[in-house]
Amino acid sequence: MRIVGVRRSDAPGVEVADLAADGSAVTLVAGLEEFWADAPGYLSRPAAGSTLARADVELVPPVLPGARVICIGLNYLKHVAEGTFAADGVPPHPTLFARWTQSLTVDGAPVPVPANEDGIDWEGEVVAWVGSTLVDADPETALAAVVGYSAFNDLTSRRAQKLTSQWILGKNGDHSGPLGPLVPAAEVGDLRDGLRVQTRVNGETVQDGRTDEMVYPVGDTLSLISHTLTLRPGDLLATGTPSGVGYARDPQWLLQPGDVVEVEVERIGVLRNPIVGNDARHATASDQGSR
Amino acid sequence: MRIVGVRRSDAPGVEVADLAADGSAVTLVAGLEEFWADAPGYLSRPAAGSTLARADVELVPPVLPGARVICIGLNYLKHVAEGTFAADGVPPHPTLFARWTQSLTVDGAPVPVPANEDGIDWEGEVVAWVGSTLVDADPETALAAVVGYSAFNDLTSRRAQKLTSQWILGKNGDHSGPLGPLVPAAEVGDLRDGLRVQTRVNGETVQDGRTDEMVYPVGDTLSLISHTLTLRPGDLLATGTPSGVGYARDPQWLLQPGDVVEVEVERIGVLRNPIVGNDARHATASDQGSR
Repeated sequence: MRIVGVRRSDAPGVEVADLAADGSAVTLVAGLEEFWADAPGYLSRPAAGSTLARADVELVPPVLPGARVICIGLNYLKHVAEGTFAADGVPPHPTLFARWTQSLTVDGAPVPVPANEDGIDWEGEVVAWVGSTLVDADPETALAAVVGYSAFNDLTSRRAQKLTSQWILGKNGDHSGPLGPLVPAAEVGDLRDGLRVQTRVNGETVQDGRTDEMVYPVGDTLSLISHTLTLRPGDLLATGTPSGVGYARDPQWLLQPGDVVEVEVERIGVLRNPIVGNDARHATASDQGSR
Repeated sequence: MRIVGVRRSDAPGVEVADLAADGSAVTLVAGLEEFWADAPGYLSRPAAGSTLARADVELVPPVLPGARVICIGLNYLKHVAEGTFAADGVPPHPTLFARWTQSLTVDGAPVPVPANEDGIDWEGEVVAWVGSTLVDADPETALAAVVGYSAFNDLTSRRAQKLTSQWILGKNGDHSGPLGPLVPAAEVGDLRDGLRVQTRVNGETVQDGRTDEMVYPVGDTLSLISHTLTLRPGDLLATGTPSGVGYARDPQWLLQPGDVVEVEVERIGVLRNPIVGNDARHATASDQGSR
């Protein structure tokens, strides 16, 4: 299954659907809230709703507006070594930062470069979706609660990210978080098996890592989080990016309008997004985002 | 007006209402989405819906689940000087961190101390509510878009906050963000007038500052943000806390189960919340939070 969110012109709200392998059609699964109330159940059986042409729906992330998008920075050793925090070494705990769901978008959506940035930087990674409530959970319980994975591009406004000690402004640019379909955990297996994560810019490979290089695995990180805040079905964990980001290169290489950036994760799929200029931020200011 | 969110047992979703001065009743204004689609309009005329006894509704924050809760750290000079970042001096830009709406709660709600914390710390402050879309806005336009203010307690799990360089885990504990009613900007005036912000623990004053001590005013901060991400009606800016937080005291003083913490902001009102133990996190794990 490849779970996506859809909006139909003739139905209210967001529904969850299974995207056909060739991308030509979607088969409805449930309403968004209904899906997350029993994600393990819906993912264990074929989609039972009607099938619609892809062209007749708008694809959106299958994400609850109030879900938390929890991101790990500095989770691949070679990425720690290449960046601003290299001198500090590997952090003793997962470095967690926040995205709001309004920053998320889908495969194919254009991503604008804010006017005050020299470009935006790529960060290909894997997102894990939480499928049940976790409070003070141990790592095994937490990992077992993961119902699926998606490819993700944590596109970053580096200037805004580094204005102060805290990163979140540069991590929440408009449409800066392309998120691919949710693939059920049963089809993906365990990230500790070492899934290949690649990022390409205009066809050239710029990141090429494996998920078994992660310092902090998914179960351990969700367990840690659950001891402070109660995780809910639909919450997301972005697991960090391998080495090869643009700002750490010499010379620096950032995405410009006209570029196309792809993230490919083994067993999970490919995300492909064009980069556009700041004018797109004004053109879409009347949209309501993914809230 | 004192704008609150309400849930009725016999109506779906969250509605917005005006809380009577004596707290005994609420008068309905609009549905939550409807309110934020025209907040300036609804705030300019008396609530026109039916009046219900306070006891017949559940109060919740009048917040859209997908709204961004953008928080300024280190925004009062004496607070900068008392804390971990004192040696760095005043940051050159507002230090922005993130809360998710699921961390918000209301006046009176019990706030749990996670089991792995020595207590939780108070941070009394003022929240500004954005009422219209802002993209690449100048400071004056951004300030004019603020439709109201609320008292806020940015209750913090200090151990979790300081595990790594990024603060967000310790800023998103369950029910750790009590938020008072929205008071229209027209009734509050300008924070630069210097509204008194006080925090009390079991009746003892622990913070006593004025909003004209802020380093980064609301309009400037919203303007800065709007150059990276498009602000939407219903987004919130928590404007930072004055000096006097508990972790910076000698000896350290953190809130314990049984304590009562109050935040009072001149012209805006009083928030009062009891502190409880970690057991409450398990007892409410079946709730759906504010999403």
